[in-house]
Amino acid sequence: MNLVKVAIVGASGYSGQELVRILMHHPGVDLVCVTSRQYAGQSLGEVYPRLKGHRLSDLRFSNSTVHEIVATGAKFAFLALPHGLAHEYARPLLEAGLRVIDLSADFRIKDPAIYEEYYHGAHPAPELLPMSVYGLPEVYREEIRKANLIASPGCYPTSILLPLIPLLKKKLISPRGIAVASMSGVSGAGRKAEIDYLFCECNESARAYGVPKHRHLAEIEQELTNAAGVPVVISFTPHLIPVNRGIVTTIYADVEPGVDPAAITAALNDAYCNEPFIRLAGEKGNADIKNVTGTNYLDLAWRYDKRTHRVVLMSAEDNIVKGASGQAVQSLNLMCGWPETLAL
Amino acid sequence: MNLVKVAIVGASGYSGQELVRILMHHPGVDLVCVTSRQYAGQSLGEVYPRLKGHRLSDLRFSNSTVHEIVATGAKFAFLALPHGLAHEYARPLLEAGLRVIDLSADFRIKDPAIYEEYYHGAHPAPELLPMSVYGLPEVYREEIRKANLIASPGCYPTSILLPLIPLLKKKLISPRGIAVASMSGVSGAGRKAEIDYLFCECNESARAYGVPKHRHLAEIEQELTNAAGVPVVISFTPHLIPVNRGIVTTIYADVEPGVDPAAITAALNDAYCNEPFIRLAGEKGNADIKNVTGTNYLDLAWRYDKRTHRVVLMSAEDNIVKGASGQAVQSLNLMCGWPETLAL
Amino acid sequence: MNLVKVAIVGASGYSGQELVRILMHHPGVDLVCVTSRQYAGQSLGEVYPRLKGHRLSDLRFSNSTVHEIVATGAKFAFLALPHGLAHEYARPLLEAGLRVIDLSADFRIKDPAIYEEYYHGAHPAPELLPMSVYGLPEVYREEIRKANLIASPGCYPTSILLPLIPLLKKKLISPRGIAVASMSGVSGAGRKAEIDYLFCECNESARAYGVPKHRHLAEIEQELTNAAGVPVVISFTPHLIPVNRGIVTTIYADVEPGVDPAAITAALNDAYCNEPFIRLAGEKGNADIKNVTGTNYLDLAWRYDKRTHRVVLMSAEDNIVKGASGQAVQSLNLMCGWPETLAL
Amino acid sequence: MNLVKVAIVGASGYSGQELVRILMHHPGVDLVCVTSRQYAGQSLGEVYPRLKGHRLSDLRFSNSTVHEIVATGAKFAFLALPHGLAHEYARPLLEAGLRVIDLSADFRIKDPAIYEEYYHGAHPAPELLPMSVYGLPEVYREEIRKANLIASPGCYPTSILLPLIPLLKKKLISPRGIAVASMSGVSGAGRKAEIDYLFCECNESARAYGVPKHRHLAEIEQELTNAAGVPVVISFTPHLIPVNRGIVTTIYADVEPGVDPAAITAALNDAYCNEPFIRLAGEKGNADIKNVTGTNYLDLAWRYDKRTHRVVLMSAEDNIVKGASGQAVQSLNLMCGWPETLAL
Repeated sequence: MNLVKVAIVGASGYSGQELVRILMHHPGVDLVCVTSRQYAGQSLGEVYPRLKGHRLSDLRFSNSTVHEIVATGAKFAFLALPHGLAHEYARPLLEAGLRVIDLSADFRIKDPAIYEEYYHGAHPAPELLPMSVYGLPEVYREEIRKANLIASPGCYPTSILLPLIPLLKKKLISPRGIAVASMSGVSGAGRKAEIDYLFCECNESARAYGVPKHRHLAEIEQELTNAAGVPVVISFTPHLIPVNRGIVTTIYADVEPGVDPAAITAALNDAYCNEPFIRLAGEKGNADIKNVTGTNYLDLAWRYDKRTHRVVLMSAEDNIVKGASGQAVQSLNLMCGWPETLAL
Repeated sequence: MNLVKVAIVGASGYSGQELVRILMHHPGVDLVCVTSRQYAGQSLGEVYPRLKGHRLSDLRFSNSTVHEIVATGAKFAFLALPHGLAHEYARPLLEAGLRVIDLSADFRIKDPAIYEEYYHGAHPAPELLPMSVYGLPEVYREEIRKANLIASPGCYPTSILLPLIPLLKKKLISPRGIAVASMSGVSGAGRKAEIDYLFCECNESARAYGVPKHRHLAEIEQELTNAAGVPVVISFTPHLIPVNRGIVTTIYADVEPGVDPAAITAALNDAYCNEPFIRLAGEKGNADIKNVTGTNYLDLAWRYDKRTHRVVLMSAEDNIVKGASGQAVQSLNLMCGWPETLAL
Repeated sequence: MNLVKVAIVGASGYSGQELVRILMHHPGVDLVCVTSRQYAGQSLGEVYPRLKGHRLSDLRFSNSTVHEIVATGAKFAFLALPHGLAHEYARPLLEAGLRVIDLSADFRIKDPAIYEEYYHGAHPAPELLPMSVYGLPEVYREEIRKANLIASPGCYPTSILLPLIPLLKKKLISPRGIAVASMSGVSGAGRKAEIDYLFCECNESARAYGVPKHRHLAEIEQELTNAAGVPVVISFTPHLIPVNRGIVTTIYADVEPGVDPAAITAALNDAYCNEPFIRLAGEKGNADIKNVTGTNYLDLAWRYDKRTHRVVLMSAEDNIVKGASGQAVQSLNLMCGWPETLAL
Repeated sequence: MNLVKVAIVGASGYSGQELVRILMHHPGVDLVCVTSRQYAGQSLGEVYPRLKGHRLSDLRFSNSTVHEIVATGAKFAFLALPHGLAHEYARPLLEAGLRVIDLSADFRIKDPAIYEEYYHGAHPAPELLPMSVYGLPEVYREEIRKANLIASPGCYPTSILLPLIPLLKKKLISPRGIAVASMSGVSGAGRKAEIDYLFCECNESARAYGVPKHRHLAEIEQELTNAAGVPVVISFTPHLIPVNRGIVTTIYADVEPGVDPAAITAALNDAYCNEPFIRLAGEKGNADIKNVTGTNYLDLAWRYDKRTHRVVLMSAEDNIVKGASGQAVQSLNLMCGWPETLAL
């Protein structure tokens, strides 16, 4: 296999660390550059002792400029930066001919006005939005193959969109009244030194946050609206629970009048029975974080509730694999023409 | 204070242990009898080393018959038995003149047909149902004072009913379409030797269960219907999360058209501002398990979502205190004419 | 009971919060002043929602000077400050006639040279050391009653000293070769915003730290030497484990040649059978963190190992109750002539 | 690569599950038979939803007899049975020409009298002991290559033997007085439905157990004695801590008089610098469970304590990988002449 040179910009958070781990073991990738302002000069193994033992653990974090990244010969760059900063790298790297996979929210929202509403600032690079592809392979596989700029989806959105999109596309459920509760592991808050995320503040704790208008609503509703063909506005509440990794999401949706519940099951089976990273647990199975941690799988279970004529959809994923870094590598695999499951 | 003699029947589970702990320190209670088939002959301190050091930790679990319980002179009996068994003690103890506080579901559901639907067997003592009072002091305080048979509420129901009842009573929210997601600590599953509740099966795990028709729906909908004056059918999904104790519940309800959101806040403040065990966290505060564990408080926060014209209600309680044993002692205090907060 | 006015200086950490909680419910205490630079102006309930519901939760953190503290009429001051700062308050408060209970290490070590060796700086107030009493009531009860300056012991030392002191005093074990491993909950690290103590860095983790010369060795060896009458040098390794609270300590000591193992049991029983806060689990029982959290108990179990002629001593305590704030209140009770167990 | 047919006998526990996971992905292995009395007839994916998605997850657990196992053409059999049962399979499988890797204690202890002392029953197959090889590749690599019967080491022994053996061999530390404290995740207790291992009994808990004579002492002292050339008797206390996986071990050993501490570091570096699964964290690094979970690494750190002239050795491993199934596969790789790290 011809190795492709890859750079990671901003690799010191939990998603960045996972991205490094996956790419270190990727047979098609030559990891040539890993940047981190915080850890520049230290080796991957020093910062993440877990990675020691691998040949690449001696690679050092750098504080590389765009120019230096380009000089490494990298053909792909992953951006794992806080929102609002990705454009500083994305634009010049794209101009230099690299293909860019961004893990932040910056290129996910097509309408700059909505970006501004949710992220409290004008979009820094609206001219790039038309070329960006929302990196959800199960929905945009062909577009991803050809894209030069991927906006890799957020963790909550992935767990919500995959269950709902096939049902909205087939108009089996109502686009109105959808209600979602998600529970996330603490890694979702990032590797930030804040009191709120100390062990003693999260252990033996569970709490809702970001109510009622979490930022991820912007991309969730954009994609649900695309699927439904009519505007979709939902209720969404994220909760922080004491696990390191993983999201479990429970969704209520009204089944359209007259729809046979069997059509729900058929639609989900049709949509996903050949998807390598969606495991259908069906009408009897469960979606449990413990079955997906460390993997790129999303587990999906559902029940029809005849008392309310609603469907209950339950999904589980690892928030930093299928919800972040694994999904981003899934896009890389598509962009390179490799098997989609390579190294995942 | 004149001591009241109290017996606990079936005290070997997590709720029973908590009941013992509270009553041990209750200044009005003389704990005269604690039964457990499993631990008969062993002392409280041997079975629960945590209780050692207290004068009463030498009290032994007995395998007492109803006759023997009556002979202790107990005036009150708490029943902490699996569902379906409470009537074997409740009926003869009531006949012997004791007042009974039952922690099981057996006397909560007024309609035997609904009991049968949810608990898969004919109700064993339907003749006792008319005299039972649902032991939610914030709703049935006066009835509890005079009752001889208390059906103390379940853990999930408490966390759902208290937020919703004032809003349904005032017709501020629609009785249709209410959607609830609850997250419970593992003690809610009881102290049973089952693989599913082993540490390694629950830690780093989170999962929905009992979907779509958990047994607690029966009492939840009964009480919501009472409050609304019209039939209420809801969606409810419990989740198991890796904490020992505590429930956090998130509820979506459609605000009735034309209702000013401020009326929501006013109704909750009116209902609960003088309640000793409800802490109103309001429109800015949070409901977090860690703030209520080991206490009899229910914390209640809420947000109006103008995008959906829904209210999001968030509650937190300790499932084995306010959700079980603490609430049962709250009833005892009312029945004895003591301050409601005594020993809690 | 005549209320005694009490101030807490530096109450924003985990020990401070626990001290507030205990003193709020103490029937002999009038909590008149709680200082915190970080939270000055906010109420106890705002900073610690767990404390809400109590009358005193509206008390506000202040940024009081020594002068202002004295002006409150406080007769006792607890200092819960980082090491090196206590003297700034202790000296003037003592001069103003208050009695001071310090939870830091500053007055524990009688020899300023040893303080300097372990705390990397000259002792800031060596003239106060002669008057300070090491606040371990089981050892220094009478001295505590009369003291004006208490140096309340550290969490690890409490769990190590109480098992060893009676055996060293009676010369049943060798003063040489004692080896200790302790495991502490994360609250022991304090409420500091540092990456190392984030949930994701501590959960599913366990590690030794501070090897081979943890600061607590200074006070441990001082007190063991006092008990033995000869210099004692030990090995001690603390470990961080993923629980909020609690320390469990395992100690190996060589039984002196010719000593009957029964003498070990007799010595521990003699020393502690009437101590209200030491629970003797004996030669068959266990010391488990879960039995002591939230209490002021230290559980103590032991085994004689005939293969090595060693005794294995096992203790468990709550690091922020018996290991910090509870023990400090135990001293307060002694100093005030109250029952030693009051409010604990 | 020519595939080798492999059977797993007794694959329903945590070690069995991990063994299945590793062998499923092993490029040299054709997994032809997985037995479990408990789950016979169910597929791997049904019993362990985590394994779903892999081609082999449809393989069904069988209740195969020895005859049926032989008939599958398997050349290797892993036994993951409770102690005392392995010989029922090992003897006939060996006679049928299979090579056997046993994960139980049955063939680890060379002296049947010691087996009987620790396992409370006569050894069931003493005639097989001479041919068994203790499966610690870092010590017995050449013997393992040629062996037909591997006694794969226990989890605690691996974490204790690897740090100590090089130092005892070189007589740098005293064979007397070694003291060990180990902390293990709950998976070490197995997948048994017992109250003691419920989530609520282990979470927020830490406790010593098996004091003073845990069964693993038998094999630990046998191997230390082999290394030292003189009898070694140690103190060892295991503790249960609330993590799923992982062991962290802290060891105190007296450095022999006159030995330069640098010799300790040199000996460990010499012994292990080329070992693929030992990561030397050295005199400044740490051994933390979180860095080794899910891997076959053992991390090893140490400190010389001049105050006591002792060395403190700290190791971390995943108890069900390097401490069980991973190490067993390491042996398989050696026996097949494959790269030792294959699939690990």
